[in-house]
Amino acid sequence: MDLPHYLAEKKALVEGAMQNHFPHPKGDQPDHALHLEAMHYSLFADGKRVRPILCLAACAAVGGDELQALSTAVALECIHTYSLIHDDLPAMDNDDLRRGKPTNHVLYGEAQAILAGDGLLTMAFEILATPEPAGTLPPADRLKIIRQIGHGAGSMGMVGGQAIDVAAEGREIDFPTLRQIHSRKTGALITASVQAGALIGCATPTQYEALTRYGNEIGLAFQIIDDLLNVEGTAEQLGKAAGSDAARSKATYPAFFGVELTRTKAIEATDRAIEALDGFDPTLALPLREIARYIQTRKK
Amino acid sequence: MDLPHYLAEKKALVEGAMQNHFPHPKGDQPDHALHLEAMHYSLFADGKRVRPILCLAACAAVGGDELQALSTAVALECIHTYSLIHDDLPAMDNDDLRRGKPTNHVLYGEAQAILAGDGLLTMAFEILATPEPAGTLPPADRLKIIRQIGHGAGSMGMVGGQAIDVAAEGREIDFPTLRQIHSRKTGALITASVQAGALIGCATPTQYEALTRYGNEIGLAFQIIDDLLNVEGTAEQLGKAAGSDAARSKATYPAFFGVELTRTKAIEATDRAIEALDGFDPTLALPLREIARYIQTRKK
Repeated sequence: MDLPHYLAEKKALVEGAMQNHFPHPKGDQPDHALHLEAMHYSLFADGKRVRPILCLAACAAVGGDELQALSTAVALECIHTYSLIHDDLPAMDNDDLRRGKPTNHVLYGEAQAILAGDGLLTMAFEILATPEPAGTLPPADRLKIIRQIGHGAGSMGMVGGQAIDVAAEGREIDFPTLRQIHSRKTGALITASVQAGALIGCATPTQYEALTRYGNEIGLAFQIIDDLLNVEGTAEQLGKAAGSDAARSKATYPAFFGVELTRTKAIEATDRAIEALDGFDPTLALPLREIARYIQTRKK
Repeated sequence: MDLPHYLAEKKALVEGAMQNHFPHPKGDQPDHALHLEAMHYSLFADGKRVRPILCLAACAAVGGDELQALSTAVALECIHTYSLIHDDLPAMDNDDLRRGKPTNHVLYGEAQAILAGDGLLTMAFEILATPEPAGTLPPADRLKIIRQIGHGAGSMGMVGGQAIDVAAEGREIDFPTLRQIHSRKTGALITASVQAGALIGCATPTQYEALTRYGNEIGLAFQIIDDLLNVEGTAEQLGKAAGSDAARSKATYPAFFGVELTRTKAIEATDRAIEALDGFDPTLALPLREIARYIQTRKK
C-alpha cells in the first residue's frame, strides 16, 4: 500500500470538505471578517489531518462508507485546531511558531486568538449536529458521537489533560501523572476520532472495542514520539523550537526512560495497536495498520 | 404573579440540576481537581440564571413540560459562564471582579481560566447531546437544538459579537456596528435559549416565530439596560467597576442617544417583546411577560 498517496488523497478529501463548511471568510463587516479570517488561518495552516483521516479509516475498516464520516472528520479537525490555538497562547505554552508559521495570537492578538479557538470549538459541535448530506446515520447515533467526542475533547479528556499539564509545570511529576497527561491531552481525542468512525461505519461491539484499543495505543505512540522528536528534532523539522519542552522543564518519556527505552515503548504501543486489528478484514484495515506504523516512524 | 418568588423557585430548580450534572469537583488527582474546581467556582458564583429560566419559561409558555428542558437550561448556563470567564481575561476586558467576587483568572491564573472556559463550553454540548432522563424529545429535535444553540453561541452569534467588540475597541464605531455587537454578543444566546425552550415544548411554527421575536427584543432590552447600568450604576450594585465601559471608551447606547432616549428605547423593546406574546395563553405566558418587564427595570 502506498501510504503517502493514501494520506495525500484523504487529506485532500478532508480539506475539500473543510472548504465547504468554511469557504473563504467573508464577514458582514470588516471586524467580523477579521474573526472569521483568524479561524480560517489556523484551520488551513497545513495540518496533517491525522484525526480526520483516522476517523475515515476507522469507518472504512469496518466496511462503512467513509463519505458518511466526512463532516465528523471536519469537526474533529476544528477541535484539534482550536486546541492548538489555545495551547500556543502566551498564558499557556507561549509558542510563536506552529507548523513553521506564526501562531494565531502572534498574527491576530491574544483576544482574537482566544475567540478564534472558541469559535472553532463551537462550530465543531454545530457541524457534528448537522446530518451529512444524503446521510444515513440515525440521529440517536449522531448524538452518541457528539457525547463521545465531547468527552474526549473536554475536561475528562483533552482539556483536562492540558489543565493537568499546566498545573504541573515547573514541578517534578511522577510517571503516572505524565501518563495521564498524555492519555488525556493527546490520546482522548485520537481515540474519540477512531470511535466516531467506527460508530458511523456500524462497527460490531467487538470491532468497536478493538478500535478503541487501537486508538488508545496509537495515541500513546503519538505522544511518545512527540516527546522524542522534541528532544531530538531540529526546529526546521518540527516547525517550532526544538528542546522547548526541556527548556520549560516539562516531564517527557525520554526524561524518565532515556531515548532508547522510549523508542522501544513507542514500538510496543504500535505493535499492540496493530494486534488490535487482528480480527478485521486485512484489506479494509490496511490503512489503519499503515497509519500506526507511520505514527511510530514519523520524523515531524 | 409573584415574580421574585417565581425566579427564586426556577433558579433553585436549575441549580439543583446543575449540581447533578456537576457534583462537587473531585478529580482523580490534585491537578485535575483544580481544573474541575475552577469550572465549578464560576458556574456556582451566584448567577441570576436568566438564560436557563428563559428556556424553561418558553417551554411552559407553549404548554410544554419544563422538566423536559432542564438539562438544556443547564447547558445554556455552562455556555454563559464560559463566556464570562473568557470575557474577563486580561487579554479581553481584564476584569478582576464579577458578581462581587474575584474573576476566574484572578483565582486560578490565566491558563486555568482559559481551560475552565473551554471545559464548560465542551461540557455544554455533552449535556445537550444527552437525552433527559425519561425524556420524550426526539433525537432529531435534540440535534436541531444543538445547532441552534451552537449558532447562537458561536462565530455567527456570541463569539462573533465579542470578536467585533474587541476589534472595535478604542475606535469610533457607528450605531449599526454597536447594534450588531449587541445583538450578537448578548441577543443571540438569549434568543437561542427561548427558541430551545419553544422547540422542547413543541411550539407551533407561529409560536416559534413569535418567541424568536420575543427573544430578540428582550435581548436588545437586556443589553441597553446593561449599558445604562454601566453609566449610572454603582460598583456595589454591579459587582464590578461602574463606568468601566466609558473608561475603555466603548460605544454604548447612552453615548449615542443620551440617558433619557436610551431608557425609552429599552421600554419600546420590552413592549415589542410583550406584544409578541399576544397570541399565547395568558396564564402560561405570564412568566415570560413578567421577565421582560423585570429585565427592563432591573437595577443590576
